[in-house]
Amino acid sequence: MTKYIDLNSDLGEGYGPWQMGDDERILGLVSSANVACGGHASDPDTMHATLGEAASNGVCVGAHPGYADPLGFGRRVIPMAAAQITHMVAAQIGALSGVAQLTSARVAYVKPHGALANLAARDVEVSNAILDGVGALPVLAISGTVLEQQAKARDHQVYSEIFADRAYQANGELVPRSEEGAVIHDPVFAADRLIAFLESGEMPVLGGGSIALEAHSICVHGDTPAAVEMASQIRKRLTAQGVEIRSFIQG
Amino acid sequence: MTKYIDLNSDLGEGYGPWQMGDDERILGLVSSANVACGGHASDPDTMHATLGEAASNGVCVGAHPGYADPLGFGRRVIPMAAAQITHMVAAQIGALSGVAQLTSARVAYVKPHGALANLAARDVEVSNAILDGVGALPVLAISGTVLEQQAKARDHQVYSEIFADRAYQANGELVPRSEEGAVIHDPVFAADRLIAFLESGEMPVLGGGSIALEAHSICVHGDTPAAVEMASQIRKRLTAQGVEIRSFIQG
Amino acid sequence: MTKYIDLNSDLGEGYGPWQMGDDERILGLVSSANVACGGHASDPDTMHATLGEAASNGVCVGAHPGYADPLGFGRRVIPMAAAQITHMVAAQIGALSGVAQLTSARVAYVKPHGALANLAARDVEVSNAILDGVGALPVLAISGTVLEQQAKARDHQVYSEIFADRAYQANGELVPRSEEGAVIHDPVFAADRLIAFLESGEMPVLGGGSIALEAHSICVHGDTPAAVEMASQIRKRLTAQGVEIRSFIQG
Amino acid sequence: MTKYIDLNSDLGEGYGPWQMGDDERILGLVSSANVACGGHASDPDTMHATLGEAASNGVCVGAHPGYADPLGFGRRVIPMAAAQITHMVAAQIGALSGVAQLTSARVAYVKPHGALANLAARDVEVSNAILDGVGALPVLAISGTVLEQQAKARDHQVYSEIFADRAYQANGELVPRSEEGAVIHDPVFAADRLIAFLESGEMPVLGGGSIALEAHSICVHGDTPAAVEMASQIRKRLTAQGVEIRSFIQG
Repeated sequence: MTKYIDLNSDLGEGYGPWQMGDDERILGLVSSANVACGGHASDPDTMHATLGEAASNGVCVGAHPGYADPLGFGRRVIPMAAAQITHMVAAQIGALSGVAQLTSARVAYVKPHGALANLAARDVEVSNAILDGVGALPVLAISGTVLEQQAKARDHQVYSEIFADRAYQANGELVPRSEEGAVIHDPVFAADRLIAFLESGEMPVLGGGSIALEAHSICVHGDTPAAVEMASQIRKRLTAQGVEIRSFIQG
Repeated sequence: MTKYIDLNSDLGEGYGPWQMGDDERILGLVSSANVACGGHASDPDTMHATLGEAASNGVCVGAHPGYADPLGFGRRVIPMAAAQITHMVAAQIGALSGVAQLTSARVAYVKPHGALANLAARDVEVSNAILDGVGALPVLAISGTVLEQQAKARDHQVYSEIFADRAYQANGELVPRSEEGAVIHDPVFAADRLIAFLESGEMPVLGGGSIALEAHSICVHGDTPAAVEMASQIRKRLTAQGVEIRSFIQG
Repeated sequence: MTKYIDLNSDLGEGYGPWQMGDDERILGLVSSANVACGGHASDPDTMHATLGEAASNGVCVGAHPGYADPLGFGRRVIPMAAAQITHMVAAQIGALSGVAQLTSARVAYVKPHGALANLAARDVEVSNAILDGVGALPVLAISGTVLEQQAKARDHQVYSEIFADRAYQANGELVPRSEEGAVIHDPVFAADRLIAFLESGEMPVLGGGSIALEAHSICVHGDTPAAVEMASQIRKRLTAQGVEIRSFIQG
Repeated sequence: MTKYIDLNSDLGEGYGPWQMGDDERILGLVSSANVACGGHASDPDTMHATLGEAASNGVCVGAHPGYADPLGFGRRVIPMAAAQITHMVAAQIGALSGVAQLTSARVAYVKPHGALANLAARDVEVSNAILDGVGALPVLAISGTVLEQQAKARDHQVYSEIFADRAYQANGELVPRSEEGAVIHDPVFAADRLIAFLESGEMPVLGGGSIALEAHSICVHGDTPAAVEMASQIRKRLTAQGVEIRSFIQG
């Protein structure tokens, strides 16, 4: 059985006076924070506060670039040429890295956000555009996606994540949210499923059977109290099983 | 006589579909380009294009951070705490540096823009806030200002600029634009004045006399055809006098 | 004793995916909603939702224009010429009015927001700039301010508001937040003070004595649970005293 | 032969310090101005200046709403629900109408911009979303499009435009820009083609033959000197043929 795993969550997604999610509690639970970079959310002050809090909690920081569309929270595909995606990703990682230099945090990896991540999961050109923009930083990709495959094909360091609260299909893709059973709401069930996966490397498939998945990290959410509760349960139960929660970045 | 001097100009100040100034011509005239970073102007695509063109022209690149106020073009003082200025400056330099990594250009210095520069010219706290945000990068400051003094007091590398088209007062400050004679419109007169300054280290004062000024760079503008013509004349006449136009950054 | 009074609160101050305050509860307590117009906060979808909910609750709607500075939430003075303030105010009221035409709500008055309101409270030119931008709509001004006086001087319909949770000075101005006793935290004390004011027309002054104030409305807040609790207490106690809570706009 | 026709052009598409096109010259040539509303371009000051200049030139004003995407100039489809399009269109028309109340101009019709117009040209739902947002204002639609058809089906007043510089296909659609001959560059040829169309009601088809088209207006551009020259030639030659250039809105 894998004796350690990373827990990652999106953080620092406020915007000026507006807050999003319970960053304080989630920083006490995860080992990696995907920090918004001023594209879909955040601003220099929010970045600075989030980076400082992540460092204080010993949480590893990744850049979380997304479409520069705060009103859509980066969840809408903004039509862009591949080169434009590359420029945008590089500018956002740069902004977060610039602010990080004011803190003891360092940007250690990149996880694309929202619609950009979903597009990269199935589109080679968008995946390459992102990889062109991240420089030497490793990428955290959804397990089994085109982005993960392209990174490997380019010998770019890549880590894989699975979702704590989503059911899987036999082909390794997530069950669409519109289908029954797609989202797992029971924290205990979610935690037990992850423990079983860490033991076997096999993820249950909705409807029966299982598939082999690679995972260096488990994605949890902090945007609702229920999400924070799930993250808390998962950490507690994994830890009770002797699984160490630690970042996939070592050094 | 000083046998070399830098010419600097603000560049890359378009915004999405909108253009500002004749960057192409000015890049053939200057040795340093202060490149907008997405605060008062620019966007990742514009940054990328400007950085690439600067590199092609062998022009040294500086970051040109300003208030995040495109509608005001960074010419309005946005009330901010000192720490907020530091975060903003770091984020903007970081964004430009991030895009620069996609090109052969490197960000070699920082020159504040517009209202931020004007405030730093007379305000110790704002000067320190900027210096806190630039990391190890040298600063290009208006000669004789508080920003220049604070940088020196902090042992922070600083270069000084004078203006090609502005008259000076006996205390070393610019004659306010509202006063007659404040702005020089004759390119030949402007160039001759600069040549005399490079020989003597003394800048003429409006109304008579002169003052000693330190200058590593001359600021020229590219936002109007007349400004480009002045920059062109200054380069031509300085070169004819054997003055080499080269960046203050060497190596 | 005044047998009726208006309760007003700022509403609809979310921005895209971000929420601000508990609009749902506060709409059940107030008779007037100052609705953000896309300047300091809000967007067309948020405006539409807020207008619809105000209409459903029988709450009168006012436009709540502020500096076009979401990151500063309209709490920073953005340097603008008087004419620019006029244009901005007209555009924001227009935007809200345009969306209101899709609902059964109508924009019935204007209350400036944040730094714009505070500046208008003491500045004749800014007050006139705002009044130039509101067209024929009545204005809701802080009692005793320059904006209220200018509106009267121009024969522009104006209503006055007092604050439920702020102490007053002998000159009718609010005690600055930095001073002890400036903010009232006890809902019962706040409510009793307002009841006494409605009976006497005299507001207690911090330190002793009282001043005559004019008030058509009491401003309450909904941005924290404590603020909502205070608004709830005030409504309950006023109603228990036979004071009807109703909009100052009739018809 | 039609003895009068409207010439329309997009105007007021600057943004803060940035200009777009030669509004001054084009206002002397057209009878209708489609004025940007702060979505894809413009701001309250630009709106005010453009409305004032249109009124001074006796040019009829239409609102020109587009996706709220200045960096993309409204030329990218931003994924939005139909209701969101309705809210956005209403807010933008409202903003322009609000500023117009400060001038002698009145918003007399609506012409969608860029990607929103192109989508409405072929999409019933988007056309209905726009029509839901315009209130009682007439719409200016591209001749032969779904938007024109939907407006007619809803008994909504609609006017049709053709393009001065674009070749047509046999089905009434424009020849795609990627095909040879799609764009007409010769002002004399363009003008003569329009004169022939006004006489016959038949538009030549690229490759031979012609189609019947309905047109109340001809769309010209002002964003390049060549475009302004074409607009000038068209106006001159139409006028020489006795065709009056006047708005389709009368009264």
